[in-house]
Amino acid sequence: MQLAARDDVSDYLIAPDPGAVRLTRAVEGVDHTGARAAISVVEERPLTIFLNGQEIVTAMTIGDYPEYLALGFLRNQGMLQDGEVVKGVDYDDDLDTVVVRTDGRTSYEEKLKKKTRTSGCAVGTVFGDMMEGLEEVRLPDLAVKTSDLYALAARINRTPSLYLEAGAIHGTVLCEGARPLVYMEDVGRHNAVDKIAGWMFSEGVSAEGKLLYTTGRLTSEMVIKTALMGIPALVSRSGFTAWGVEIARQVGLTLIGRMRGKRFVCLSGEDRLVRDADPEAVPEEDGKSRRKSAPG
Amino acid sequence: MQLAARDDVSDYLIAPDPGAVRLTRAVEGVDHTGARAAISVVEERPLTIFLNGQEIVTAMTIGDYPEYLALGFLRNQGMLQDGEVVKGVDYDDDLDTVVVRTDGRTSYEEKLKKKTRTSGCAVGTVFGDMMEGLEEVRLPDLAVKTSDLYALAARINRTPSLYLEAGAIHGTVLCEGARPLVYMEDVGRHNAVDKIAGWMFSEGVSAEGKLLYTTGRLTSEMVIKTALMGIPALVSRSGFTAWGVEIARQVGLTLIGRMRGKRFVCLSGEDRLVRDADPEAVPEEDGKSRRKSAPG
Repeated sequence: MQLAARDDVSDYLIAPDPGAVRLTRAVEGVDHTGARAAISVVEERPLTIFLNGQEIVTAMTIGDYPEYLALGFLRNQGMLQDGEVVKGVDYDDDLDTVVVRTDGRTSYEEKLKKKTRTSGCAVGTVFGDMMEGLEEVRLPDLAVKTSDLYALAARINRTPSLYLEAGAIHGTVLCEGARPLVYMEDVGRHNAVDKIAGWMFSEGVSAEGKLLYTTGRLTSEMVIKTALMGIPALVSRSGFTAWGVEIARQVGLTLIGRMRGKRFVCLSGEDRLVRDADPEAVPEEDGKSRRKSAPG
Repeated sequence: MQLAARDDVSDYLIAPDPGAVRLTRAVEGVDHTGARAAISVVEERPLTIFLNGQEIVTAMTIGDYPEYLALGFLRNQGMLQDGEVVKGVDYDDDLDTVVVRTDGRTSYEEKLKKKTRTSGCAVGTVFGDMMEGLEEVRLPDLAVKTSDLYALAARINRTPSLYLEAGAIHGTVLCEGARPLVYMEDVGRHNAVDKIAGWMFSEGVSAEGKLLYTTGRLTSEMVIKTALMGIPALVSRSGFTAWGVEIARQVGLTLIGRMRGKRFVCLSGEDRLVRDADPEAVPEEDGKSRRKSAPG
């Protein structure tokens, strides 16, 4: 197995841009010895998403790819259906807003009002909505080769990222076979997934043949988002929640967690696994990647 | 410095209960060798919080201390003021609801309706509300001794917890001097903080002399919650966001991150630090505690 050089990201369609000026800031403080130290910290900004005339949500985000974040959020909330015509996506970086304009008035608007009235808060609303869509999900076949999983984990952990630069950020990567295609990072792990969903919607990319790799925990919301995106496998360095596992089993999603070095555990959809790699031949992680566990 | 034995939690007022039946579940899967493996995963349940007649929010929580979570959430949202008389807190474990009853109709109800209408979603609402209260925050003096910080970190990392048992969970600990008082864990890091706020409100415990230790990142929301609770110092193993640092500086909160072994960085409120320990005398973390980085 030939690994690409450490900072060769030429085969990514979108790779992290750890040098981007708007995403991190040097902040001065003092360290444990009392010495002044300038450390690089990630930005965190509000972004308010509108769908046509209606304000939908304010997300706390690192601030890159606001258009993808808005489209992906609306997709993953079921507010933007397949085949819906998006007339425009307007980002205003002074107001920190994105307005998504679609053809005509969408039915979600009545639904949103009703839900808001009955449950009083969008946190419950959003969750209720998302569970509803799950019954119709039919996830495609996929051969999840363990050789690909090991290659992806090694590659992603070594890819220059805001995480390696400044920490305190989540990463989610859309992958195909052994190739990471789109690597999004954000202070909120759901934002990173939503940005991938927005990219897929914008580019008309199908979920067929894809898997999602995330640094975050495999909670119910992560599993639901992945399933609604039609992606049949979700892989993480981190652990599981019981409800995340339960939902993955209900929808037939392959769920792999605690993937570090040669180790991983598959708690759902084991039938997609193709064990074509010898785990004993996989090197243990070095110190640098071992620290790359999920931020909180 | 005398460290307590590994599982001596007798000086905690509330310690984690990693053996509790309702909080984890054994789930069967397969590991990297193809062997069947039963692993322990944390629960994640919806809990809907009502204040008098109004449904406020549905939180995803591990499920312990629902009454503290409800009270703390309402406190941290400014919906339950100092001195307000709570007539009852009723948890229903079949319906997954907590109803908090106060004396008479509270003014927040009109406010919530208005906010919900204007911003369409409680995520934005909550955030807007929380920033408002910050201007009035006056944080108390505190001598944050580095000897206490090192003792706390060592102690907390070795305390038996759901994190050590099952992973995928956040911990937040209310501390006084070198003593951890209340150690709450939850799938959402904000829930762990809210449970501490609820405990403080219920028990009438003042923020004076306290500091908060968290496994999670020091984001704007964590800093805001700590400041609104009146606690003058927030310490974490994890990193910072730029806005978290900015708000800490505005309100004069001592913010210490990346605390691992002898290392830490203080990015705000350095004047409270008392450097009474020699960092070189602090042992590096062993493998077990090194893995105890924040879940995602």
